[in-house]
Amino acid sequence: MELIYKNLLSEELDSLEVNLVRSISSDISLASEISNYLVSSGGKRIRPVICILIAKTYGYKGKDLIKLATSIELLHTATLIHDDVVDQSLVRRGKKSIQAKWDNAHGVLVGDFVYSKAFQLMASFENSQIIKTLADSTNKISEGEVLQLSLKNKEVLSEEDYFEIIDRKTAELFKSAAVTAGILSSCDMDQLSSLARFATSLGISFQIQDDILDYFGNEELTGKKLGKDFEEGKFTLPILIALKKMSDDEKSKFLAMFELGKKDDFSEILALLSLNETITDIQDTFNYYSNICKEELNNMPDNRYKEALYDIVINLDSRLT
Amino acid sequence: MELIYKNLLSEELDSLEVNLVRSISSDISLASEISNYLVSSGGKRIRPVICILIAKTYGYKGKDLIKLATSIELLHTATLIHDDVVDQSLVRRGKKSIQAKWDNAHGVLVGDFVYSKAFQLMASFENSQIIKTLADSTNKISEGEVLQLSLKNKEVLSEEDYFEIIDRKTAELFKSAAVTAGILSSCDMDQLSSLARFATSLGISFQIQDDILDYFGNEELTGKKLGKDFEEGKFTLPILIALKKMSDDEKSKFLAMFELGKKDDFSEILALLSLNETITDIQDTFNYYSNICKEELNNMPDNRYKEALYDIVINLDSRLT
Repeated sequence: MELIYKNLLSEELDSLEVNLVRSISSDISLASEISNYLVSSGGKRIRPVICILIAKTYGYKGKDLIKLATSIELLHTATLIHDDVVDQSLVRRGKKSIQAKWDNAHGVLVGDFVYSKAFQLMASFENSQIIKTLADSTNKISEGEVLQLSLKNKEVLSEEDYFEIIDRKTAELFKSAAVTAGILSSCDMDQLSSLARFATSLGISFQIQDDILDYFGNEELTGKKLGKDFEEGKFTLPILIALKKMSDDEKSKFLAMFELGKKDDFSEILALLSLNETITDIQDTFNYYSNICKEELNNMPDNRYKEALYDIVINLDSRLT
Repeated sequence: MELIYKNLLSEELDSLEVNLVRSISSDISLASEISNYLVSSGGKRIRPVICILIAKTYGYKGKDLIKLATSIELLHTATLIHDDVVDQSLVRRGKKSIQAKWDNAHGVLVGDFVYSKAFQLMASFENSQIIKTLADSTNKISEGEVLQLSLKNKEVLSEEDYFEIIDRKTAELFKSAAVTAGILSSCDMDQLSSLARFATSLGISFQIQDDILDYFGNEELTGKKLGKDFEEGKFTLPILIALKKMSDDEKSKFLAMFELGKKDDFSEILALLSLNETITDIQDTFNYYSNICKEELNNMPDNRYKEALYDIVINLDSRLT
């Protein structure tokens, strides 16, 4: 079933696409060409959608909303480009990644170009609180990237580090998308805190869902192959919860298998993750964050934009059950 | 002989170093550690020096100057870190580059971290013209990087492209260092235009001098080995001017030798660059920009800070003759 926001925001989403392409235009044609290659390859646009829905929930009628949403999606795009260089990923949104199609040098420099375009948009806001919020987020995200890198060779990631990383790498930009939309709409401090809590939890739920779908998803529905995180040896929530249930012996055996990341072992890993109490714990953790989203939505004015936000939260739930 | 600014700004320069280190502090210790490795390895600090001298020439007495100078040096530092990833350079400021000591991933992400710290500092200015000027510069610089990359496989670089690249990669940040110092000091539009022209020309002179010293420098004085640009096959002004003087046959022979970049051929290249009319043309081009600097200095109030700026211009001259 189609999500409510798709119809509700159809004009704004068209305008977002036009603005994204326009904002990366440049005298240096190669810079536009390569960044456009990724920008025009779809993507869920979930961060700008949150930003637009929240501003509209709070009745914003000004002309700066699409500009704000564009700068947030550009920040996200720049991090994807650099992530693909760092991870040497070959595929992004079903196409070759920029570093795979061109090379590392192009990935690094076009990523910087997209960042710079995001900063130019940010700098054009007259409200300094918006600029500061986005600059602080950029910093928090980049620290999250370095933190993740520093933990790469650890035998096992702690649950604390897992949450610290997804808080910085995923939830942070959800949060600033929501908070800056709130600032634009003249929300007071209480409303901004509530928006921050809502969007942080939504970002975490979103990431946990992504992590779960990598093991239990329907490949036809998600369009993504199962087991990518497993093959890359990436510690995600399902793995961390499963590990907590194991004896030391089981853990060593599991970690050895996990380190190799062999496709043949995937079904055995799946069986371990599918044990009742593991599934329940994963679901409980997800529900914890999903419930915060629903609670915080109660603080917002009732209208169809808020309904569309609620619909996004519910939809995340339903894809897991 | 020591440059005047070193004594005149000794307090400010100490404060700059303290602020640089403080500004890259982070909860994520690896991010601070790696960025501090480069930040604390010296560097000429020419951009912050220009920024501080200009603000003081115009009588600025406020508290934001070192913060501005720090953000400019951080922007420069971030570009150096990414440049070393892109060029796979092994050495920076006499030490291993970050990508050589750690790896590409650390170079990309720590570069992003330093950018984000620069943006946080920029965002803290109440004056939106300062933020916009620096954001625009960041974009112009990154476009220059992509332009340079797009021209990498050309058989020969045109003089026009050479100037476009150094204008963006070197002169641009000199310019915004000067212009933002002027904005901070409440300069009027005419004064800002003059500052832009002064600092752009200074940046270009600075780069041309660097290019010349790579062929004709005194290794003991500069601390840099001769012939690095030649070995990397980098088209710089001396080469472009020499090429203009050659017949088609001479040109093909020269380009073939240049492409190989063999150390043994360096003396032959030097002999070609040392022909009288080539040397004169190089010097004339340098003088053109150096003279603009001197002209524009005439528009500034007379005081010892302006004298120190003049001294920097004269010192660039003297190292070439």
